[in-house]
Amino acid sequence: MEDPWQEAYDFAVEVARGAGAVIRKAAESEIKVSTKSSTVDLVTKTDERVEKIIIGSLKEQFGEGTHCFIGEESVANGESCNLTDKPTWIIDPVDGTTNFVHGFPFVAVSIAFAVNKQLEFGVIYSCLEDKMYRARRGKGAFCDDEPLAVSDVADIHKSIIISEHGTDRSPEKVKKIFSTMQKILCIPVHGLRGSGTAATNMCLVASGAVEAFFEIGIHCWDIAAGAVIVKEAGGVLLDVDGGPFDLMSRRMVSANNETIARRIIKEIEIFDSERDDAPVQKKKK
Amino acid sequence: MEDPWQEAYDFAVEVARGAGAVIRKAAESEIKVSTKSSTVDLVTKTDERVEKIIIGSLKEQFGEGTHCFIGEESVANGESCNLTDKPTWIIDPVDGTTNFVHGFPFVAVSIAFAVNKQLEFGVIYSCLEDKMYRARRGKGAFCDDEPLAVSDVADIHKSIIISEHGTDRSPEKVKKIFSTMQKILCIPVHGLRGSGTAATNMCLVASGAVEAFFEIGIHCWDIAAGAVIVKEAGGVLLDVDGGPFDLMSRRMVSANNETIARRIIKEIEIFDSERDDAPVQKKKK
Repeated sequence: MEDPWQEAYDFAVEVARGAGAVIRKAAESEIKVSTKSSTVDLVTKTDERVEKIIIGSLKEQFGEGTHCFIGEESVANGESCNLTDKPTWIIDPVDGTTNFVHGFPFVAVSIAFAVNKQLEFGVIYSCLEDKMYRARRGKGAFCDDEPLAVSDVADIHKSIIISEHGTDRSPEKVKKIFSTMQKILCIPVHGLRGSGTAATNMCLVASGAVEAFFEIGIHCWDIAAGAVIVKEAGGVLLDVDGGPFDLMSRRMVSANNETIARRIIKEIEIFDSERDDAPVQKKKK
Repeated sequence: MEDPWQEAYDFAVEVARGAGAVIRKAAESEIKVSTKSSTVDLVTKTDERVEKIIIGSLKEQFGEGTHCFIGEESVANGESCNLTDKPTWIIDPVDGTTNFVHGFPFVAVSIAFAVNKQLEFGVIYSCLEDKMYRARRGKGAFCDDEPLAVSDVADIHKSIIISEHGTDRSPEKVKKIFSTMQKILCIPVHGLRGSGTAATNMCLVASGAVEAFFEIGIHCWDIAAGAVIVKEAGGVLLDVDGGPFDLMSRRMVSANNETIARRIIKEIEIFDSERDDAPVQKKKK
């Protein structure tokens, strides 16, 4: 019992790989033959199917009663999104659904596992690139079998920063998002990028390709696995107000180091986003 | 003589592949061992070395006197940037130098060939992904051996649009770039992306992963090869003011179709950028 979660970790990698193969097949075959305008159903179908495959496999392996599950599709279908002390799987079956529809090359399966509200491991399978990112608390982060390490850049002027515009188009939020990006670009930094998936963005931080990724409006299933991977690659996680990272808060800065993170935080214009664990009856539709 | 440029086209593919291997090796070995802060010299060195390899190979194959060369590094070193009727190679040895420094996964070799000011073929080797994009006028576009086709989306609301923030940080330009992006996002579209290289962005249009890519401030060597690839994949090229595409104008909209292109053009806030073929003595430093 010195290493209670190794089996679960290994199993998660295999489940992610299998789920990714299903997504890749859907992207390669079904998307190609469907017209783009008919793909919304396909996305929903693929999302739901892949989440069922993942949760089904995990329940079969670990028993239904002992482990809890927080999945994007389950929550969308009304299940609760509370992180308790129980062993809990946090799952995004298809991170980057817009990319998936368009065949844009970043689509990921994200699986994380928490016990006593602490993240124990994270697995992100970037399935179109066929890259398996994974990390276990205290045991390092890897892409396939290569160890991952964040960038050593401490000078913000030499950094690339990633963020996303999100899916909310309400004028006030959009204005703050663009204003933040413009201020960061003009620090100045080397550049801004956006892959269209939070999971992949966090892997880009972990692998040193960019210095930081921040976003307001993401969900716990988008970032839970990435949080472990960034941390184990030597990076830091903070709230956008500079306080401690809170998985359920829907906002986060992940960076190669605290200097870069805190410089970015200075420029971020914060807007409200309801917590993932807000009581269901109060949730906005 | 019915097919006078096939040999040149085939040769360009091989030259791009060889150049890409040099870049990939530099990215994998030298970048890893250097600290990021010491990479500026490495970039310049790699850019210059790769351009010399490409132009050297082409001169050896086709003779120095008969063909002309427009290359990013040569122009930076004071050579002319005029497109004449002569057979002319237009070369970007490393498109995406910022990506290259950071190990961000989009770095491309771009080689185009024009005769009588008409682009005959274009080759873009995305060397970290190992994808060879190529197209010859009238003969289709391919990624490796797969034919490329633009997206069939005609509804702007179902589109992904790519643009870049560029390297110029002058406040007026940055303001217009962000204002344009914000207006396009709020049409609304599915999303905005940015890979950090114009060549790769045009390949994403050609392969149907995004509907359009536009930018002001790019150079002819960034887009010459991509222009052929987008067109042969069924796409369109226009000036940002809706007029005909002009390779030397430093501005362009490339899209899957004219409906999408013209909808984007409505939102673009144009700013000045000196033509690539402006007389050298008048050029700003």
